[in-house]
Amino acid sequence: MTERKIYLEDIPLAAARAKLQAALERAGKAAPLAGERLPLAQALQRVTAQPARARRSSPHFHCAAMDGYAVDAAKTATARENKALALRLGRDAFPVNTGAPLPPGTNAVIMIEHVNYAAEDSLLIYAAAAPWQHVRLMGEDMVMTETVLQINQRIRPVDIGALAGSGHREVLVRRKPQVRIIPTGSELLPHTQEPGRGQLTEYNSLVLAAQIQEAGGEAGVSAIVPDDFQQLRAALASALAEEPELVLLLSGSSAGALDFTAAAIEDVGELLAHGIAVRPGHPVILGLAQGIPVIGVPGYPVSAALTGELFVIPLIQQWLGLSPSAPARVKAVSTQKIASPIGDDDFVRVALAEVGGRMLATPLQRGAGVLTSLTRADGLALIPRFHEGIAQGGTLEVTLYQPLERIQNTLLIMGSHDPMLDLLATRLRLRDGQRRLVSVNIGSLGGLLALRRGQAHCAGCHLFDPETETYNAPFLRRYLGGEDCALVTFAHREQGLIVPPGNPLGIASIADVRGRRLVNRQRGAGTRVLFDYLLAQHGIAPADIAGYAHEEYTHLAVAAAVADGIGDCGMGLRSAAEALGLDFVGLAWERFDLAIPRRYWQSAGLQALLAALRDESFKRELGAQSGYRSDETGTVV
Amino acid sequence: MTERKIYLEDIPLAAARAKLQAALERAGKAAPLAGERLPLAQALQRVTAQPARARRSSPHFHCAAMDGYAVDAAKTATARENKALALRLGRDAFPVNTGAPLPPGTNAVIMIEHVNYAAEDSLLIYAAAAPWQHVRLMGEDMVMTETVLQINQRIRPVDIGALAGSGHREVLVRRKPQVRIIPTGSELLPHTQEPGRGQLTEYNSLVLAAQIQEAGGEAGVSAIVPDDFQQLRAALASALAEEPELVLLLSGSSAGALDFTAAAIEDVGELLAHGIAVRPGHPVILGLAQGIPVIGVPGYPVSAALTGELFVIPLIQQWLGLSPSAPARVKAVSTQKIASPIGDDDFVRVALAEVGGRMLATPLQRGAGVLTSLTRADGLALIPRFHEGIAQGGTLEVTLYQPLERIQNTLLIMGSHDPMLDLLATRLRLRDGQRRLVSVNIGSLGGLLALRRGQAHCAGCHLFDPETETYNAPFLRRYLGGEDCALVTFAHREQGLIVPPGNPLGIASIADVRGRRLVNRQRGAGTRVLFDYLLAQHGIAPADIAGYAHEEYTHLAVAAAVADGIGDCGMGLRSAAEALGLDFVGLAWERFDLAIPRRYWQSAGLQALLAALRDESFKRELGAQSGYRSDETGTVV
Repeated sequence: MTERKIYLEDIPLAAARAKLQAALERAGKAAPLAGERLPLAQALQRVTAQPARARRSSPHFHCAAMDGYAVDAAKTATARENKALALRLGRDAFPVNTGAPLPPGTNAVIMIEHVNYAAEDSLLIYAAAAPWQHVRLMGEDMVMTETVLQINQRIRPVDIGALAGSGHREVLVRRKPQVRIIPTGSELLPHTQEPGRGQLTEYNSLVLAAQIQEAGGEAGVSAIVPDDFQQLRAALASALAEEPELVLLLSGSSAGALDFTAAAIEDVGELLAHGIAVRPGHPVILGLAQGIPVIGVPGYPVSAALTGELFVIPLIQQWLGLSPSAPARVKAVSTQKIASPIGDDDFVRVALAEVGGRMLATPLQRGAGVLTSLTRADGLALIPRFHEGIAQGGTLEVTLYQPLERIQNTLLIMGSHDPMLDLLATRLRLRDGQRRLVSVNIGSLGGLLALRRGQAHCAGCHLFDPETETYNAPFLRRYLGGEDCALVTFAHREQGLIVPPGNPLGIASIADVRGRRLVNRQRGAGTRVLFDYLLAQHGIAPADIAGYAHEEYTHLAVAAAVADGIGDCGMGLRSAAEALGLDFVGLAWERFDLAIPRRYWQSAGLQALLAALRDESFKRELGAQSGYRSDETGTVV
Repeated sequence: MTERKIYLEDIPLAAARAKLQAALERAGKAAPLAGERLPLAQALQRVTAQPARARRSSPHFHCAAMDGYAVDAAKTATARENKALALRLGRDAFPVNTGAPLPPGTNAVIMIEHVNYAAEDSLLIYAAAAPWQHVRLMGEDMVMTETVLQINQRIRPVDIGALAGSGHREVLVRRKPQVRIIPTGSELLPHTQEPGRGQLTEYNSLVLAAQIQEAGGEAGVSAIVPDDFQQLRAALASALAEEPELVLLLSGSSAGALDFTAAAIEDVGELLAHGIAVRPGHPVILGLAQGIPVIGVPGYPVSAALTGELFVIPLIQQWLGLSPSAPARVKAVSTQKIASPIGDDDFVRVALAEVGGRMLATPLQRGAGVLTSLTRADGLALIPRFHEGIAQGGTLEVTLYQPLERIQNTLLIMGSHDPMLDLLATRLRLRDGQRRLVSVNIGSLGGLLALRRGQAHCAGCHLFDPETETYNAPFLRRYLGGEDCALVTFAHREQGLIVPPGNPLGIASIADVRGRRLVNRQRGAGTRVLFDYLLAQHGIAPADIAGYAHEEYTHLAVAAAVADGIGDCGMGLRSAAEALGLDFVGLAWERFDLAIPRRYWQSAGLQALLAALRDESFKRELGAQSGYRSDETGTVV
């Protein structure tokens, strides 16, 4: 075994940022970047590097604001409605179109609608013209030398117009900060290649490059460097030689890789911080080499993306001269207890929805490996250091990832997750682009309890009651107390035995499970309840089945265990078997319902959801999925 | 004269939009565009054209979540802290790095920190491992076939990661809507050329192209077409032949040009609307030709930009499958009476600031030619049809152009505008990127009255009191009532006589104005008060000066009239004379002060402003400007 530095010394986020800033100051790299001249047509969303002053006034001459006749107002004083004044064309009055310069000696325009024609060369007016009427004065919009655009301002479409209108062809904008990204890790493959067992797809470089691009920088991604100190050191040295503003070393998932990163930075420069008290994110490394900041980004995808948000984007903004953005925030009630490590700033991804007039935050999976906890998040809640966490019902301050209005148009479904709920979400979105269906997977019973606590608009459940041999309704009576709730059928789903391809053991019914190595589901799962019921029906004792104690937590985990040869069969959905290319022995069709409290039934959101559910083309699409029936979809039980 | 269709028949905005939608439906052009496959690295901010499902699970095998040893949990049951269990390497325990697949027969990982080494080939553990501890289960993040990204969703950095992580190399995104922009108008020059007298710079095409680009479309801009029916018709026909999603015909400023546009559309297709009851914007033309929508965009820059916001951007969003964006809104008190045409939806550009705890909206210049009323706007207030306007103190609903937080950090200065206030705004921004100084020009006296009504944080004024021969203080006493207000000197400015280059009449003092053609300022202007005082000092009667009655409203207008030869001289700032390349005869230095109510004095914003004003490098910069002195800048009078 090689020796490893196992414990990281974490420093608080603010201290880490301060160290980085101090190092940048010392290196003379803390200031916004110099400017480059760009043609206006390329300047959108770039940042001004100096105030822009009007090179000429706009308009740059007094001009007609209407189509009509330019006159000297003083010479029209006697005109009255009942006493027309004749003006000689070419002497007293001059035809002008809007935008045309006023001829010398004129200071007013009479609208074409307000004149009559007396003869070939003269016209009649019926009111005196006020000086400067219907005239756009020189400089009305912009006066030569005045400031048109401030420094450090992102250029919007109208700003480009103002620049062009005041005589500019180009604008001095901040150079885009250049970032060199070096992914490392012997187990990683580029996302363009198909990974084998034991290989992982490298995509943190894509995420960070996109974050940098969105913030206004430019990123170049190097080839993946294996976990080899000399190669990493060489890659870092060649990146530094390009003189970018920033180098990112993306670690593979192994903690060992982080040490290579730290060692490589120390070898060519200075290590500023190794481990930061932030969760998820922890093993961030900060360094400075040859005057260039180097950040070691942890390999777990959530950690990597948050490192981008916490360190990389703020640096890009600083170099562009932009003040840190202050995203919108909202206060929300936590639907769950959140335990938080006391020493860390803990960033919790949450789903948000307004239920019964309250803004609710439901924490998504906490694991640093669950990138979908970020893609599905509506916002990020910070539980600061020295807080143990948040009680259920406690208040969270959430930084929004979505506009508030979109969250207010979100329907939240909690409970058992059926993959076809995503089809319903798509249908809802296609029918009404404003509405979103968000589902949080906490199991059938969890969903009913969430309804009871007023935490969701509806719940997905497939709970079989062996006593009455019916689905769901008995559980609503048992768990929902006084809440008046409707059950609407979502789908019937085929449950059965997942077996290896070709069904080598010839399993044909529940009876054939006897003596086989089973992969079971956890106690309390709807599928387990159904399986136990089927066993009892056939008089099979659990003791007769090897592996009855082997519990998995999802349909797919059961399928995976069968695919891995760990078991001979397992109970689950046909769709899970087919997803992994396994065979399937159908045993029963179960009903998956949506439980909807009556008090939300009439809301526009629920009505839109029900309409989507009953949409004939949706039902056709759902029914065409393998292992699904939609003939009762949308009916109230 | 050619006959002209002078009166446009305006239809309401909603009706115009409905007509356009109906025409698009008929033409089969209302639906989102088809998709195109893009590599992930190019997909940022594009819009998904179908839901993306996981092509493989992530992770796609059970893998170690920690560096350590993979074991079969069942075989570790007897390990205790005081009774170590020995595991044979390669038989009972297998070294794994984070991310590595679990070897067959193992289902848990023991962290490397929790083992000791007994011999070359065995290690000791001190606790039983729970099944699946420190294991990332296959599909923990994404399960094969599950929906990773919904349809019609803008792709964010983390979405790219989720796509790559679930086995995608490409993504199907909406094709970018293509827009062909044809600027028209014989008086227009491209912004890359220097316009002469009577020529105007064409920049609406730049603004609309940037709006389209920002919304996610692509615009091509044609060469400017002169006001000639055949040429316009040919340009339109060739644009239609490209089969873009949309054609924009940008009118020149002349009303006549609009008729060419309408006629050209009618010639090749169908005219849907000619004039829409929207202000500013009015003469918008909607048509459909060869199944392609054609919009005639009015020539005034504010009208053009608003036509982009009201018609073009929503079409781009529709073709991308995005639901119309719902920008943030805020309620604000109008600081001024706003008269509004009863038949139109009136879009009023406003500056926003929070003064004394109230959000205040000050309408900016209303003219459709004043593009800076858009670049300076913090938001847009709609005064709907059938409303006559808003009283002073009435409530406006304002759509925000700036984040609310930035507005809350805005200092509002009203009153006389000195161009060097922009220098101060720059300095404030450089010292504290969060703060903005916004100035609204309503004259010295107007500024004091605004302070009295609690509508501004401070006021700029240069009011000379002939009785006391002092500046500003007597006016504060007279107009501010009980408001306790400090006067802080901004600058001393040189006032004098603006004369043609070379001073051909040899004007050397106020006495030389006698018998000359004067360009005067309006009654009540600080500069007029000073001028009248100087005349009286020298015993010159207004009657002795030709043109005393010729009033202009700004320093620059006076300078322009002198430059045009309309007058021989006029009173104004040295900086105005130099801006137009004129000569200048200095007569007096006046004091321009900032009046600051005591009750705002201690606020963080005012303290930041005072610090910027007293910043030595700011004072140096201000003092270096021609016609300015800064030796008393920042001192309290």
